[in-house]
Amino acid sequence: MKIYASFGAPPFLKGKIRDIRPIWALEEIGADYEIIWLNVKEGEQRSDAHKARHPFGKVPAMEDGDLTLFESGAILEYIATKYGALGGPSSAAHWPHVVQWCYAALDTVFPPLFDNFVWENFRKDHPVCAEVTEIARTNANARLDVLDEVLVGKDFLVAGEMTIADVLMGTVLRNGLFPDILGDHGNVRRYVEGLTARPAFKRAFDLNSKGPA
Amino acid sequence: MKIYASFGAPPFLKGKIRDIRPIWALEEIGADYEIIWLNVKEGEQRSDAHKARHPFGKVPAMEDGDLTLFESGAILEYIATKYGALGGPSSAAHWPHVVQWCYAALDTVFPPLFDNFVWENFRKDHPVCAEVTEIARTNANARLDVLDEVLVGKDFLVAGEMTIADVLMGTVLRNGLFPDILGDHGNVRRYVEGLTARPAFKRAFDLNSKGPA
Repeated sequence: MKIYASFGAPPFLKGKIRDIRPIWALEEIGADYEIIWLNVKEGEQRSDAHKARHPFGKVPAMEDGDLTLFESGAILEYIATKYGALGGPSSAAHWPHVVQWCYAALDTVFPPLFDNFVWENFRKDHPVCAEVTEIARTNANARLDVLDEVLVGKDFLVAGEMTIADVLMGTVLRNGLFPDILGDHGNVRRYVEGLTARPAFKRAFDLNSKGPA
Repeated sequence: MKIYASFGAPPFLKGKIRDIRPIWALEEIGADYEIIWLNVKEGEQRSDAHKARHPFGKVPAMEDGDLTLFESGAILEYIATKYGALGGPSSAAHWPHVVQWCYAALDTVFPPLFDNFVWENFRKDHPVCAEVTEIARTNANARLDVLDEVLVGKDFLVAGEMTIADVLMGTVLRNGLFPDILGDHGNVRRYVEGLTARPAFKRAFDLNSKGPA
């Protein structure tokens, strides 16, 4: 399996781009895979060769035999299914709930956190930044309040085991730490800290941060 | 199967809330199902009874036997899998691509369209509305440019057949028509018009618009 990942982004983005997600999942599983690096400083992600894999010109993309895929959520579902791991359908009766939390991470929790992240990092000097981030933070808080209750006494979202939903939610929430939008949601913080302390996350982070040798 | 859907929202939101998605899919399949209506004017979606199904207090939610699910994307994956229809894994070799376009609809195309939708509909008089919608429209255009190329000569996203990815992308894009953000993306327009002209969409729209008898 080949994972297309990026290097050359500004240092504060290390480990915060979506390409860390499949790398983390594959490190959890201990699967064989290869990373193909695209230099985003040179715009390689927007080359015709890469757009044939990913029409939106982004990372990650994946190739496995004849199959080419993009969208981190879809790649993670494929990995969990192929290896019967991380909550995948052959290893658990809980697959619909794993899928539910994958979408909840990307479709419900991510948007206000990302909105805040983008404005505070890339549009800090824009005259409307303060107004927009205030709205984003209010919306993010509403989602985090719910998540904080869901995570009471839990290290993982589904059935007490590490799944691809935790890979997605963990990376979404980790980005919420820069700048800090998680506030005093203690269960959310404990959950993210537990996930990012995992050896597989650390290996993925190191690989993803170093780029090609 | 029970689908929890909403009524009582302002008329301009008819058919634009996520609960139309599973209803449309079930109408395409001709499956037996029941709609349980929640009065959003009375805040029934935020009742303790509903939050036990959907902790974020939203629609749709689904119950099928002992299984309770939320997130429209996860419910659609479950429906396609259960019935082996709309691109579901037992009916097609193309499931990973169906899943890919489900995530692309919600995670890549939806965010800038929704941003524009929310600001132009709910925050029109906010002093920063013009600046924010200009950014949202620029981002939406970049995504729609790609989608317009993907859809050249195509009525459906994957393998020439109607799938749950079209249900998600169709509803995402339909919302982009109010206010119109699709612009001169002719293939995107033709695609949405084709989808929303389907008898199953029309039945779902009528059911969803009327609410409880």
